[in-house]
Amino acid sequence: MPVNLSAPVAEYLLPVTGVYLGVAEAGIKQPERKDLLVIKLDEGATVAGVFTTNRFCAAPVTIAKQHLASGENIRALVVNTGNANAGTGEQGMNAARTTCAELAKLLGCAPQQVLPYSTGVIMEALPVEKIISGLPQAIANLKQDNWFDASQAILTTDIIAKAVSRQVQIDGKSVTITGMSKGSGMIHPNMATMLGYIATDAAIATPLLQEMVSEVANLSFNCITVDGDTSTNDALMLIASGKSGVEITAANRAELQAVIAEVATLLAQAIVRDGEGASKFITLQIDGGKDVAECKKIGYAIAHSPLVKTAFFASDPNLGRILAAIGYAGINDLDVEALKLYLDDVLVAENGGRAASYQEDDGKRVMQQSDITVRVELNRGAVNATLWTCDFSYDYVKINASYRS
Amino acid sequence: MPVNLSAPVAEYLLPVTGVYLGVAEAGIKQPERKDLLVIKLDEGATVAGVFTTNRFCAAPVTIAKQHLASGENIRALVVNTGNANAGTGEQGMNAARTTCAELAKLLGCAPQQVLPYSTGVIMEALPVEKIISGLPQAIANLKQDNWFDASQAILTTDIIAKAVSRQVQIDGKSVTITGMSKGSGMIHPNMATMLGYIATDAAIATPLLQEMVSEVANLSFNCITVDGDTSTNDALMLIASGKSGVEITAANRAELQAVIAEVATLLAQAIVRDGEGASKFITLQIDGGKDVAECKKIGYAIAHSPLVKTAFFASDPNLGRILAAIGYAGINDLDVEALKLYLDDVLVAENGGRAASYQEDDGKRVMQQSDITVRVELNRGAVNATLWTCDFSYDYVKINASYRS
Repeated sequence: MPVNLSAPVAEYLLPVTGVYLGVAEAGIKQPERKDLLVIKLDEGATVAGVFTTNRFCAAPVTIAKQHLASGENIRALVVNTGNANAGTGEQGMNAARTTCAELAKLLGCAPQQVLPYSTGVIMEALPVEKIISGLPQAIANLKQDNWFDASQAILTTDIIAKAVSRQVQIDGKSVTITGMSKGSGMIHPNMATMLGYIATDAAIATPLLQEMVSEVANLSFNCITVDGDTSTNDALMLIASGKSGVEITAANRAELQAVIAEVATLLAQAIVRDGEGASKFITLQIDGGKDVAECKKIGYAIAHSPLVKTAFFASDPNLGRILAAIGYAGINDLDVEALKLYLDDVLVAENGGRAASYQEDDGKRVMQQSDITVRVELNRGAVNATLWTCDFSYDYVKINASYRS
Repeated sequence: MPVNLSAPVAEYLLPVTGVYLGVAEAGIKQPERKDLLVIKLDEGATVAGVFTTNRFCAAPVTIAKQHLASGENIRALVVNTGNANAGTGEQGMNAARTTCAELAKLLGCAPQQVLPYSTGVIMEALPVEKIISGLPQAIANLKQDNWFDASQAILTTDIIAKAVSRQVQIDGKSVTITGMSKGSGMIHPNMATMLGYIATDAAIATPLLQEMVSEVANLSFNCITVDGDTSTNDALMLIASGKSGVEITAANRAELQAVIAEVATLLAQAIVRDGEGASKFITLQIDGGKDVAECKKIGYAIAHSPLVKTAFFASDPNLGRILAAIGYAGINDLDVEALKLYLDDVLVAENGGRAASYQEDDGKRVMQQSDITVRVELNRGAVNATLWTCDFSYDYVKINASYRS
């Protein structure tokens, strides 16, 4: 069950003027399941995104990047679940192009104005005919007040949908931000099997929008990991419809960017809270490093250790496993005598070993919580990084040993 | 259950003249369990080793390295299980020093002539009094023909013992090599929670012995992974008693080194075959790389992917997960169109996607085997690397969620 995460409530998800969402049951993998989403944008919207760094990136990722680079105004996004169209070679590229062309025909725009996204099983041919057949149904369903259904249409092994809205006053006008995400396995920094779509009705020129989405990703979606696997398909897209009449520039970006980052962080954390088999949500706060890279290295070494993750699952304060992970993180000049390790407020280790004040009962108490913060004070610099991960349970193995069957 | 691995047979383990082994039940963690081993060496033996790269290396590792560096002839090794004496600060260093001093007193040598080793739970104080009390029992048990009992005394979560012997004729004389290892979790390259002791009755000067053990480790113990966790305690030691009268030099080292490497590879593979919860033994053969580093990077990306490991557990030819792991291995100029992926003899992927000839039934047939070879032909160079790993099962989680309790 998701860890301290509630499903979104439809009436709390605010429409973003100029952004229309329509879903369909295209029967891509399972019958009677929403598995196709079309997002249609009014003219004048800008779109920017960040994508997976996996060399085996999926066909839709390649096509989406090409279409964004073409400089055409983006008018629509199309997302299918059930099939990732990854590891599918030239046939997969054609399937993604065909999907864009068919949607463009129906919406009266150019294929380059459509961005495709796929998520699901890898290395199986995309059932492009089913997607094409589903498009009219999705278009008929297009409406601005449809984020709730849309957030469900993009799920794969997720247990619950992930969506959140915020409003902020800028220049005396109200600006809306609504976002949704999906993902629960193959989650790792630099974009995992993870799709995120955040829209705002502010007006933001494309170069600035690209800067903002990159910076936001580095503080949110690039700070989570479930299993260390970086997927072939992930993308975080930021859409600015401009309909609020509020123009964002380099001078006034900070306030809106902070709210977008908050939305992105909640959506990213929701993916971890709904991590495959997760029973604990772990915040890893690495303080006092020389640079962000070394803080993240240590954080990910802890986050990826199956031994640490199974100890969290067991609520076992087997803290030596965390020390061992810090030790092999690859910081060659790390002084283990200088660092301190905390579990929430409990000082666990210092001077290269167990803290004199540490009581096993205190460790146990913290480990039994469903939300736990591991804090490492490196005492070698002034830089911090925060990552989020979950534990490793029987259910993770169960889900991933049977995902295809 | 261990994958295609039998327990050693006592009468097949050949004594190495000049190397005496004695075990004891010291009650370190559990009663009535062999948990203490003393290895005593006749004068004139040489010893060399490689140790964990973990910055949180355990106290005995630090002390063993100091004693080796002191230049004294090593006369004894002492190994306890049940407690790793890691993350124990200055108190742990004193415990390791005391262990050496007490054994030295009993054997009539200097403390610097004794090397200590510990394995077991991390961050708990070493019960040094129990070890000291057990030493006389271990000394009373010292004999050359005792590798079988010794191989059992060094186990922790291992299901079965790991030991092997070989004999080779050099210069018309018989040279014996016998080795043993332990480890089944926290197993990763550059020495895992893994102890290995290999002895030969050849005469080998220390500098050459050090070269040989490093080279052998890089082809054996540094090519295995169970869970990606590099332990605080691991060590591979090579002992040369010299009693066979065969002198090994740079000129004639090749033949003996090949046999030592074979012994080390079998002992390393045995650790994977007995990996925590393992049901499959996977050989990862990465061919056609530019250098060993990139071959190992790709091999370890596959070997560490929980998604790949759970697919092996399920006998599910979900080969897209292997492609995804290759894609995120961090080879930035990797041409995914150029590589080929094989499961045993079955060509699975080429040209960036599923091979036209690939039949799911062929993939299933291979995946159901208990020994499987994954071969990646990178087609970008002439270098190869071979690694070994296992799958990821319910039992891995079970073992590691309950190890301390």
